[in-house]
Amino acid sequence: MLTFSKPDVEYFFQTFGIQTFAVSPDESQLVFSTNFSGKYNLWAMDLPNVFPYPLTFENQSISELVYDKNGKFIVAVMDKDGDENGQIYALPPQGGQMKPVRFADNTKQMIPLLSEDGKRLYYTSNKEDSMFLKGYCYDLETEEEKVIVHGQKGPTFLTGKSPDEKKFLYLRTFANTYSLAYVLDGEEEILLTPSAEPQHTVSGAVFVSESEIYLITNFEEDLSYLAKFDLQTRTFERVQAIEGEDFSALVYDKSTNALYISSQKGVRDHLFKYSIAKGSIETIEIPTSVVEYFKVSESGNVYLLGRTATRPFNIYKRENGEWSTLTNFGVPGVKEEELVQPEVLTYPSFDGLSIEALFFKAKEENSNGHVILWPHGGPQAAERESFRSLFQFLVHRGYSIFAPNFRGSTGYGLKFTKMIEAEWGHAPRLDNVEGLEYLIKEGYADRDKILLMGGSFGGYMALLLHGRHPDYFKAVVDIFGPSNLFSFIESVPEHWKPMMKQWVGDPVENKDKLEEDSPITYLDTMTKPMLVIQGATDPRVVKAESDQIVKALKEKGREVEYLVLEDEGHGFSKKENEIRVYRKVLEFLDSHI
Amino acid sequence: MLTFSKPDVEYFFQTFGIQTFAVSPDESQLVFSTNFSGKYNLWAMDLPNVFPYPLTFENQSISELVYDKNGKFIVAVMDKDGDENGQIYALPPQGGQMKPVRFADNTKQMIPLLSEDGKRLYYTSNKEDSMFLKGYCYDLETEEEKVIVHGQKGPTFLTGKSPDEKKFLYLRTFANTYSLAYVLDGEEEILLTPSAEPQHTVSGAVFVSESEIYLITNFEEDLSYLAKFDLQTRTFERVQAIEGEDFSALVYDKSTNALYISSQKGVRDHLFKYSIAKGSIETIEIPTSVVEYFKVSESGNVYLLGRTATRPFNIYKRENGEWSTLTNFGVPGVKEEELVQPEVLTYPSFDGLSIEALFFKAKEENSNGHVILWPHGGPQAAERESFRSLFQFLVHRGYSIFAPNFRGSTGYGLKFTKMIEAEWGHAPRLDNVEGLEYLIKEGYADRDKILLMGGSFGGYMALLLHGRHPDYFKAVVDIFGPSNLFSFIESVPEHWKPMMKQWVGDPVENKDKLEEDSPITYLDTMTKPMLVIQGATDPRVVKAESDQIVKALKEKGREVEYLVLEDEGHGFSKKENEIRVYRKVLEFLDSHI
Repeated sequence: MLTFSKPDVEYFFQTFGIQTFAVSPDESQLVFSTNFSGKYNLWAMDLPNVFPYPLTFENQSISELVYDKNGKFIVAVMDKDGDENGQIYALPPQGGQMKPVRFADNTKQMIPLLSEDGKRLYYTSNKEDSMFLKGYCYDLETEEEKVIVHGQKGPTFLTGKSPDEKKFLYLRTFANTYSLAYVLDGEEEILLTPSAEPQHTVSGAVFVSESEIYLITNFEEDLSYLAKFDLQTRTFERVQAIEGEDFSALVYDKSTNALYISSQKGVRDHLFKYSIAKGSIETIEIPTSVVEYFKVSESGNVYLLGRTATRPFNIYKRENGEWSTLTNFGVPGVKEEELVQPEVLTYPSFDGLSIEALFFKAKEENSNGHVILWPHGGPQAAERESFRSLFQFLVHRGYSIFAPNFRGSTGYGLKFTKMIEAEWGHAPRLDNVEGLEYLIKEGYADRDKILLMGGSFGGYMALLLHGRHPDYFKAVVDIFGPSNLFSFIESVPEHWKPMMKQWVGDPVENKDKLEEDSPITYLDTMTKPMLVIQGATDPRVVKAESDQIVKALKEKGREVEYLVLEDEGHGFSKKENEIRVYRKVLEFLDSHI
Repeated sequence: MLTFSKPDVEYFFQTFGIQTFAVSPDESQLVFSTNFSGKYNLWAMDLPNVFPYPLTFENQSISELVYDKNGKFIVAVMDKDGDENGQIYALPPQGGQMKPVRFADNTKQMIPLLSEDGKRLYYTSNKEDSMFLKGYCYDLETEEEKVIVHGQKGPTFLTGKSPDEKKFLYLRTFANTYSLAYVLDGEEEILLTPSAEPQHTVSGAVFVSESEIYLITNFEEDLSYLAKFDLQTRTFERVQAIEGEDFSALVYDKSTNALYISSQKGVRDHLFKYSIAKGSIETIEIPTSVVEYFKVSESGNVYLLGRTATRPFNIYKRENGEWSTLTNFGVPGVKEEELVQPEVLTYPSFDGLSIEALFFKAKEENSNGHVILWPHGGPQAAERESFRSLFQFLVHRGYSIFAPNFRGSTGYGLKFTKMIEAEWGHAPRLDNVEGLEYLIKEGYADRDKILLMGGSFGGYMALLLHGRHPDYFKAVVDIFGPSNLFSFIESVPEHWKPMMKQWVGDPVENKDKLEEDSPITYLDTMTKPMLVIQGATDPRVVKAESDQIVKALKEKGREVEYLVLEDEGHGFSKKENEIRVYRKVLEFLDSHI
């Protein structure tokens, strides 16, 4: 009888992604950015038919999409080859060439907001203030532009407007763990939380009327909750919290006068609906473990982009309390049950702090006995129950993966996230090391069968762990990781600079600490085979970060392979590049086990 | 306000195609070959969800698809870079690498049929008899193969089997207008029409029981009708004809004991359902003007692949009497109402014969006043109300297109189709010329604003019209057209050779006629600018056909551009090549008006 061999590993690389989506006001069209054709482009479906058709052939990433409320056009933010310099374009709903609307070379335009009549475009840009940014209003008819919000003290983002467009909401960020929300009412700037201190965040805020604003904040708490600010009485009020849940985003549903709130709890997300009229909150079951993004239509239907550990990006629609799947992305050639659902582990670190981690265990029939330690990027982010081609393909090829949410990760409260600030290289590193010891002790890993790989901050941590604990690892993969904290602090985008001191440290005041925590300090002990991968146009971790450590190690005669992707930034936006990188990673790991 | 420019012509090139499809027995999965990613691959949808996902990444054309009746695997016929040497592969329903099942280098395997239990594969191949072919039964369990039908006299195609797999149906082709159907019962060969003469065709035949066969034939008629052959009584019976309709294909619907019959009437197709029990026929309204292909599921649902003049390939499903659209392909960036529906013209030719033609009139706001004469390929085929990117994009750019169904075209009866046999270059050519005179007389065209373009036989006709009537044309495009009938007859695929004498003529007996009808005879008068396009691997009209005329014209100092596509055969299977060709055609035409 016919028998088929297991799907080639290439099939995992061919898994498609979705970057963002928008829905027309009448819900007859859903527009989304996906890499169906190998590169990202805008596609659409004419609901209820979900068969997609292409709108554009630009082959570039789309980070934001807004549908004109009258359904006449779509606004999209698109960069070039991952340079993260988003420019604002418009296109007709049936597709066609993208018309530049707000474009300024070598700067980024972001957060497009349209007026109700579609005649004015609000957005934030670094074109005139590279450090603190400005919020603009551009008139699409007269082509005149004015500044609405002048950034100061920290990067300032224009995020909302009141129904009559007279008041404006903006967020000012001082650190990942310190952001304040303001309303601009005429000339007056009104802070929406009772005071600027102690440090807290506001992760979302919406006008529900001309005078009422709901917001998500952790002011004076460890976990974020729902609060309300009344512009008339100037009062801040705590409205709703849920035990153990860290609220993260909110969307107003005018049709039922309610707020949809997404919430992070460790490695999973949840969704809640808070009824403003009733003052009650209910849990909305969701079809994914992680919510990337959601929107609520005028009619009250919810559209959600999310992932599970075994299902890649898909868009779901909730109507009359029932979810349906609009897209149908999986791993080509692989049944979902052949993929691995991670185990959630918890272990005490060196100082007793409890660390949560994911362990993707290779199936018995595939396992090669090796475990890859994966310190995640961010670092103020988390590894979650969220599909990654890289993980599932390595697990399918026999590697188990250990991904600890070391201190500094999000989803475990403000205090936990702050623990990594100006402390990149000590305690978080030991959380990783303790994780390995826990795995060995509990029988999840063999001491002599451990590999190390990470990207971005995870690349930095991989380099640092390599330099300081080389005996644990047989080989190391660094994907665009900073190698030198001094040069890294200098080379980040301008609008990151105001927060560098709190986040990483000060090159003068914290000189010794930064030296101690820079991987490049430990060249002598970086003795294991290494693969370094870098995008040439990366604006976050610039190529010089990889260049310098590769050069230094090569001068010492170490075994280092260096793969530079000429047309990629901080990520792999093109399928062909992604395949090239992952194929190389597999080849490298396979040759060192 | 925002205004958008008209979609770039490239958008027309980006229109996707569908080659073929298959539906799983339980109708939970539909598999189809489309060039979503720029090249043809297999994609699937999990019905009723129509969002497609990829099954393969082979980037090659698929000509046939069969789903195992137990739903365990799919059989596909795939060639390489348009070489038309189809090989038979199997793949699991979730996709993966395609496993070669019947593969023989430089030969073609075709018409895969599976036994009810999925253990035996029947197919036709030219691997052991390049001229007359053989029909095989391959056992998928034991991997043993035996010959079922030995071809003789003409290429012989194994097309069906009786329910108990003891009797086999095969078609023997002597010409496009002369094919006979047989049943093999043990050693006995039974002709299904009353006699082999007069020449007629059988375009489809199915077993509805162990002894009853229904077939579509034009035996002793001009138009094809439904007939029945009883194996027990050995009787042929005319069952059903419809005035003016030329039946073309039939599919048995066991669920209602009926036959679905597609029919050609000039430039449109129709669909009928004949109830065997009631002996009555009804018209089934269809959502397309042309039916490429249709299948009936075990439950009686109809799946149809078709086109209209303004809608490209799409798959439709008919359930409980209602059609729904499964795919949603259009021209990206262009609304269907911006495309042109052709006018159907009828004119008398030089000898009074009535010729039907399509006229695609450029919209007023786009028109450049020029008309392109398009003699279709085949030649025993027809230009129909069926979407062509090439037509719609040229019309959008201002050209009107005139496509006459000159004598020899199909859809107008057997006699009309036969009129071109061994008569390629005289009367059919004059039908084209008379068409131009009609256009000029009726005000559809200006005498000094006419261009000429054709592919395959249409390329031949373009060359010949150029050589014999150069004054009509400002410029000429020939896409893989035979230039020399002598060398063409020699170079066609082996299994075409038995029919060449009737179809084209005999190089010895008809030497003068073939010389008179060969474009290369008229080099002296081929004085207009010319563009010649050829696929290097074309097995039907080999590259030497284009090479020789290009060389001869260049030697005479004529203006000839020659574009050769290295990885294409008789057609453009790769989007990038299609775009390159069409861009070149437009540039060429634009430079000569």
